[in-house]
Amino acid sequence: MTQTIHPIDVLLHKRDGRVLTDAEIQAFIHALVHRTPDKQLVTDAQIAAFLMAVFHHGLTPQELATLTAAMRYSGETFDAAPLHSFTVDKHSTGGVGDKTSLLIAPILAAAGLASPNPDGIPSICVPMISGRSLGHTGGTLDKLETIPGFNTQLTLDHLLLTLEKCGAALVGQTPHLVPADRILYALRDHTGTVESPYLICASIMSKKLAEDLNALVLDVKTGSGAFMPTYDQSKLLAELMVQTGEASGTRTVALLTNHDEPLGRFSGNWIEVWECVDILRATRIEDRHPLSADLIQLSNLLAGWMLHLAGKAATPEEGARLSDEILLSGAAFKAWIRVVATQCGDVSLFHDPAAHHRYTASRTLTATHTGYLASMDCKQVGWAVQRLGAGRAKPGDPVSAHAGIEMHAKLGDSIKAGQPLVTLFSEDLSLLDEPETMLLDTLHIASGPPQLQPLLREVITKNT
Amino acid sequence: MTQTIHPIDVLLHKRDGRVLTDAEIQAFIHALVHRTPDKQLVTDAQIAAFLMAVFHHGLTPQELATLTAAMRYSGETFDAAPLHSFTVDKHSTGGVGDKTSLLIAPILAAAGLASPNPDGIPSICVPMISGRSLGHTGGTLDKLETIPGFNTQLTLDHLLLTLEKCGAALVGQTPHLVPADRILYALRDHTGTVESPYLICASIMSKKLAEDLNALVLDVKTGSGAFMPTYDQSKLLAELMVQTGEASGTRTVALLTNHDEPLGRFSGNWIEVWECVDILRATRIEDRHPLSADLIQLSNLLAGWMLHLAGKAATPEEGARLSDEILLSGAAFKAWIRVVATQCGDVSLFHDPAAHHRYTASRTLTATHTGYLASMDCKQVGWAVQRLGAGRAKPGDPVSAHAGIEMHAKLGDSIKAGQPLVTLFSEDLSLLDEPETMLLDTLHIASGPPQLQPLLREVITKNT
Repeated sequence: MTQTIHPIDVLLHKRDGRVLTDAEIQAFIHALVHRTPDKQLVTDAQIAAFLMAVFHHGLTPQELATLTAAMRYSGETFDAAPLHSFTVDKHSTGGVGDKTSLLIAPILAAAGLASPNPDGIPSICVPMISGRSLGHTGGTLDKLETIPGFNTQLTLDHLLLTLEKCGAALVGQTPHLVPADRILYALRDHTGTVESPYLICASIMSKKLAEDLNALVLDVKTGSGAFMPTYDQSKLLAELMVQTGEASGTRTVALLTNHDEPLGRFSGNWIEVWECVDILRATRIEDRHPLSADLIQLSNLLAGWMLHLAGKAATPEEGARLSDEILLSGAAFKAWIRVVATQCGDVSLFHDPAAHHRYTASRTLTATHTGYLASMDCKQVGWAVQRLGAGRAKPGDPVSAHAGIEMHAKLGDSIKAGQPLVTLFSEDLSLLDEPETMLLDTLHIASGPPQLQPLLREVITKNT
Repeated sequence: MTQTIHPIDVLLHKRDGRVLTDAEIQAFIHALVHRTPDKQLVTDAQIAAFLMAVFHHGLTPQELATLTAAMRYSGETFDAAPLHSFTVDKHSTGGVGDKTSLLIAPILAAAGLASPNPDGIPSICVPMISGRSLGHTGGTLDKLETIPGFNTQLTLDHLLLTLEKCGAALVGQTPHLVPADRILYALRDHTGTVESPYLICASIMSKKLAEDLNALVLDVKTGSGAFMPTYDQSKLLAELMVQTGEASGTRTVALLTNHDEPLGRFSGNWIEVWECVDILRATRIEDRHPLSADLIQLSNLLAGWMLHLAGKAATPEEGARLSDEILLSGAAFKAWIRVVATQCGDVSLFHDPAAHHRYTASRTLTATHTGYLASMDCKQVGWAVQRLGAGRAKPGDPVSAHAGIEMHAKLGDSIKAGQPLVTLFSEDLSLLDEPETMLLDTLHIASGPPQLQPLLREVITKNT
């Protein structure tokens, strides 16, 4: 069938706003993956023109489901069947200081380890395939790789063995997983077609569904630190992803969450691991750092939904309470040690993570007057973190393990003149000045308390 | 100025439907022409995405004028100043059997030669830079190159010398003329963005204006043999080209002409030269072949406008009468011999052009019943000519010099059963069957005479 469809005709049909057939979409993705330098079944220029046509016309639910499936099956896929477990993952659309993965994976793993299948395998498994920092947002892989020895480059066979043993694995994309997305993403990135919610949905969902999931919980950011510029666009993306996940047979829920300031205390790489280790080790509420409160709240919300969908809690709210119990019990910390050790990471650093923070330059910015921390452009804060060396401007750039920022106040906090607001860390003194200016420009102190949005704005499920 | 504008930002602005500044358009075209394999200032994918964005949003008159000018000046341009003549050209959007260039160039040259400047140079010069056959339409260069020895690959210096001597030259594009169009056209061709009237206009006008013209007359086809699918789209293209030409300071007129059947008697390559030589040699109306009447009428219409704009006739109608007089006087034939001989063509063949028609296979299709030749899909007729070997499916393919068709009737003619309708010629017997079927399918005989459109539908000038 597919051999008789030419990519140029698929492009012409989308250009003219026609609805593409399943066979047309499959033929286009097939050509894209199977082209070689000698046999250009479809050229970069044709793909770019196709992406721009999709940018203008969008995709129907059926087109989007078919495109996502064609991308998902464009290379190797993970097969979770041998586990006989409930597979579940979380994905975030990206944020500043967003380190929930490092808490959620061990929380879910702990729940799965506590109730193994008859064959001894955790009853819940989290095959978490993550990405790297790009632009103003951090990347889970970059954070994990600050743990000496930690190996994120597992084969799918190795991923399966790690899940059997630990109930969670934190890995990077393999070279052969969803190759269509790698090709499309590189082209979108330099042709101005990244921002299409349809293309974002297909990119995210093709990779997540390749993990062979029973359920997926999505954290879709909205606010000044989100990629999507408006609430409506964040909501549209959430709806598209839920619709596409459900169409593929994976229970999918999206939480629209507010992201107007960095999540938690630290934004960077090792310092985010440090913050999570502090939380995982805290067995009493009073041992938790007050600046980490929003991070813990969001992690429990997301993990609560995952535990609920996995059948471990009657409601998501009950799931959130269970999540917090797992954290305070120390079971999540044990699961974390198990995962890191199995992936060859040096767990000895977790006894004193602050001691491993090897920055060479730091500077603390203080409040110039008294009032309330009223607002900031959270994206600008993310760019400041990137400029300190913690992020990358383009794929392949190196990142600094120890650069980043520590926030000393949250939006709405009352502030006294002279009080520390934020501390900048860098491995290079010359990198402090520009981020300092960026942060001073964007942290606003007002005389009265600001109106703040709740952390959870809305839940999108197939029933909403 | 232009160095600080990045092509990606120009692409983003057009994607979002913003009006581009002159500097943005110039920077984009500059990057496109100056990129190298090592330094991809702009990639094929970015150009393709830009073209698709233009396809969707169109261009304002100012954007179109700036794009056309940026393309025009993207490489070398012809400088007509040394001639001190009135430079004028004609361009057709492409048709089946459209050989008016081979008549119009000698008609205008004859007028120019008859009234030289004080320095002996023809007072009118036609620097006619033509193209090759593509798709269902023929190409002037392919026709000319069937004349043994005829050299169409002149440098611009050689073009100037030929004009000084002959008042006309019929040449191909030099490698360095309007390089931006070559890059854009190749990408449009395989990304489904050929059909944008804005991009068609910029492509045609950048090449024509690079001829340094005082005036330009455009033959914009409409009807079943035209590239544009509707009358309104042909008219839009005509208006865009007139507006763009006038904005550049070249007097520009477009004639919307009907193209529902092949123009004249022959469609092919050498056989079209033959038809023109017959017309150029005819000194009495009764010596003209009746099947060539529409070709002569259209050539006189177009040449009439050119003579009028050049100041040789008070009105276009008077110009058309003067054109016909020049034809019948033999002056155009003398100018034709002069141009062909100067461009190294063998003029001895013009004594008996029919004798030089070296086909190896032919077949004549006859009417199956009596009535009137009522309609045909002229594009389908063009494709039949191409399949006989006279045209090319893709750039670079060879064309047959002697393949083609001879029409024995015109639309509206009364037809007797058994009467010849069309004769097919080919250099390969195996190539006759498919075109025969295509022609039989599309030539319709009806019991009553059809309603036909006039040849000239509408004139678009700056005053309309």
